[in-house]
Amino acid sequence: MKEFFDCLKCKECGRTYPKEAFHVCEFDFGPLEATYNYHKIKKYISRHLIESGPHSMWRYEPFLPLEGSPTVGLHTGMTPLIHAQRLAKALGVKDLYLKNDTVNIPSLSFKDRVVSVALSRAKELDFHVVSCASTGNLANSLAAHAASSGLKSYVLIPADLELAKVIGSLVYNTKVIGIRGPYDKVNRLCSEIAGKYRWAFVNVNFRPYYAEGSKTMGFEILEQLGWKIPDHTVICMASGSLLTKIDKAYREAIICGLVEEKPYAIHGAQALGCNPITAAFKKGTDLIRPVAHPNTIAKSLAIGTPADGYYAIQTIRRTGGFSEDVDDHEIIEGIKILAETEGVFAETAGGVTVGCAKKLIEKGHIPSTSQVVLCITGNGLKTADVLKDHLQPIEVIDPTIQDFDKIIDFEN
Amino acid sequence: MKEFFDCLKCKECGRTYPKEAFHVCEFDFGPLEATYNYHKIKKYISRHLIESGPHSMWRYEPFLPLEGSPTVGLHTGMTPLIHAQRLAKALGVKDLYLKNDTVNIPSLSFKDRVVSVALSRAKELDFHVVSCASTGNLANSLAAHAASSGLKSYVLIPADLELAKVIGSLVYNTKVIGIRGPYDKVNRLCSEIAGKYRWAFVNVNFRPYYAEGSKTMGFEILEQLGWKIPDHTVICMASGSLLTKIDKAYREAIICGLVEEKPYAIHGAQALGCNPITAAFKKGTDLIRPVAHPNTIAKSLAIGTPADGYYAIQTIRRTGGFSEDVDDHEIIEGIKILAETEGVFAETAGGVTVGCAKKLIEKGHIPSTSQVVLCITGNGLKTADVLKDHLQPIEVIDPTIQDFDKIIDFEN
Repeated sequence: MKEFFDCLKCKECGRTYPKEAFHVCEFDFGPLEATYNYHKIKKYISRHLIESGPHSMWRYEPFLPLEGSPTVGLHTGMTPLIHAQRLAKALGVKDLYLKNDTVNIPSLSFKDRVVSVALSRAKELDFHVVSCASTGNLANSLAAHAASSGLKSYVLIPADLELAKVIGSLVYNTKVIGIRGPYDKVNRLCSEIAGKYRWAFVNVNFRPYYAEGSKTMGFEILEQLGWKIPDHTVICMASGSLLTKIDKAYREAIICGLVEEKPYAIHGAQALGCNPITAAFKKGTDLIRPVAHPNTIAKSLAIGTPADGYYAIQTIRRTGGFSEDVDDHEIIEGIKILAETEGVFAETAGGVTVGCAKKLIEKGHIPSTSQVVLCITGNGLKTADVLKDHLQPIEVIDPTIQDFDKIIDFEN
Repeated sequence: MKEFFDCLKCKECGRTYPKEAFHVCEFDFGPLEATYNYHKIKKYISRHLIESGPHSMWRYEPFLPLEGSPTVGLHTGMTPLIHAQRLAKALGVKDLYLKNDTVNIPSLSFKDRVVSVALSRAKELDFHVVSCASTGNLANSLAAHAASSGLKSYVLIPADLELAKVIGSLVYNTKVIGIRGPYDKVNRLCSEIAGKYRWAFVNVNFRPYYAEGSKTMGFEILEQLGWKIPDHTVICMASGSLLTKIDKAYREAIICGLVEEKPYAIHGAQALGCNPITAAFKKGTDLIRPVAHPNTIAKSLAIGTPADGYYAIQTIRRTGGFSEDVDDHEIIEGIKILAETEGVFAETAGGVTVGCAKKLIEKGHIPSTSQVVLCITGNGLKTADVLKDHLQPIEVIDPTIQDFDKIIDFEN
């Protein structure tokens, strides 16, 4: 794939950089992004070629920033796109789909995509220690992928994360370091560490590689819809990166002739307790005001200073989308309605996406006649504790038919 | 597929029954099993036909007991077969594979396969309420599949199950009924209920349909190995059904010309705290002595009176396999070594399989030069709590490079 992946390029000034472990422009501190030779890709690629590729995200390898073949996460991706007719009815929209990364491989979130790319690239650049700043899902994925690749790993997380996410990292024998303070402090510390040790921090010095992995969620949506861009796509936002990369996938697919160009709207979803991007969007400004003390059950989205927030807002505006937010109660309701109608158990971030989609439909930002895709990014077992007090209690009886009959009589 | 699925047949006396909600023979109380017209299947099927089928368990539809097309669980199955080279080294065996149902769709266990078949059949037979007796995974799967199909569901479980498994059912708005006592009492109560209400109990009156779903795990192993039967397959046992059905898949694949006939061994794995099948096997008897009070962290395997235990022993003996067991400590070690080497986080049952495989290799029942497949049946997030006291504690520091350096210095 060497011939397709061009270089790294500053998103602000366009200066180019070699394909190393760089992530910010030395001149204006703009983020670097992977660029490709689309002319060559267009000549090479076709729907048929992709469809006959592996049943994983790697069928989109020409659009990913590697020089050789992938070596990490070969089973990742190609999660189901569910035609969610029962949820569509509940939300009052005609044609609804769920891109279901709750069953992504190996660690049950979309982070498996980005880590696969980052670690494959880290091995190409001969890094032996991998690391990340994480709100949980990324830590799980990094630890799992590193374990299966025999890479030494360290994950840095806010010290107060959900127990399931902590165990879901520790089990892979990664070194878990809890940082006192919110995610942004974890992230800042990681930047310092990356300056001092020769480690591949997937979301710091390897961010240009890492972030590209998210595009595969977008490409898969297009393919699974029968090579069409959905009218509306709703995406939850932490750093905002996923949203910008799904849009990038849509645009690359147009450029390379995989789908026809058409109007489409990208909508952002945040938790009210940490909504820096939505707040800025609603105010009509580009200026993102950091949230110093996130307070939401959607901990995986609790990034107060979103690295790609500015670009997320640009994307939402450019496509005619909207940015919404929901409170903790609405998040729980979102998780429940998704599970009850479609049998998909999402973590809190999924509740945010469903809750915001509901609002966007109610408010008319998503017309009831349109085709909508919701990106569900992580599995509910990771944040099951938040539901404890919000579900029907279980009924406990002795093992007799008489006791059982009483329950049924009561029900009917 | 009507033409392939023949009838139900007593495993003991061979009497045949119509394709209704029957599960035991009226004459000798033998279990009923689905039978097929292999002559017709053989004429119809080919490796190529299967490979060009859907990327799900339904590519094996001709071997499943439905009359029409499946309607439930269309995304289930075709989980990865992982070439586990790092675990192979750790266990001292040449060629090791993991059949990874920890990422099965939708509910992260092999039960998604059996429920897909049972509920598709329940809909064909016009049942509107579905139910099960469960040690947890089955409840999760039934509740998820029922929710997405709009079927009313009840799940009956031992009242002391892991919280994650309880929440993982409740979230789908199923009715969860906790029974005081071990699984066997739950199961007996379900038989009574099935006699009284017109409900589809997937593992009682729908058991002949349900159990066939497990075959798809076997078929997928063969296909993913390049249409070869592995020398050794290690399978954990609760009722023993999964083990017998993987063997059935291997035999059907031989009969229908999908793989070449060759010697293969099927090995059983149980937890020492509930090992009725292994205990009988090791004693050299067919007589299974019920375990009245199971005592193991592998709750999903804690069935003291295994319905298919007798048949499991026959299968293990016929194929030259062995039956092993492991204690709670070995289960934890099995979970950890699997996660650390392959990035696969399994529930306690997976720890049983890995732990028993280790013993079988050490004792020479599985020669170090052979090709081995381990069936990993459920996800570790469901039983994460058992690991709490068995993992490295997380190190908590302030967000400064000085504090971080201290940890690293200490490590190196």
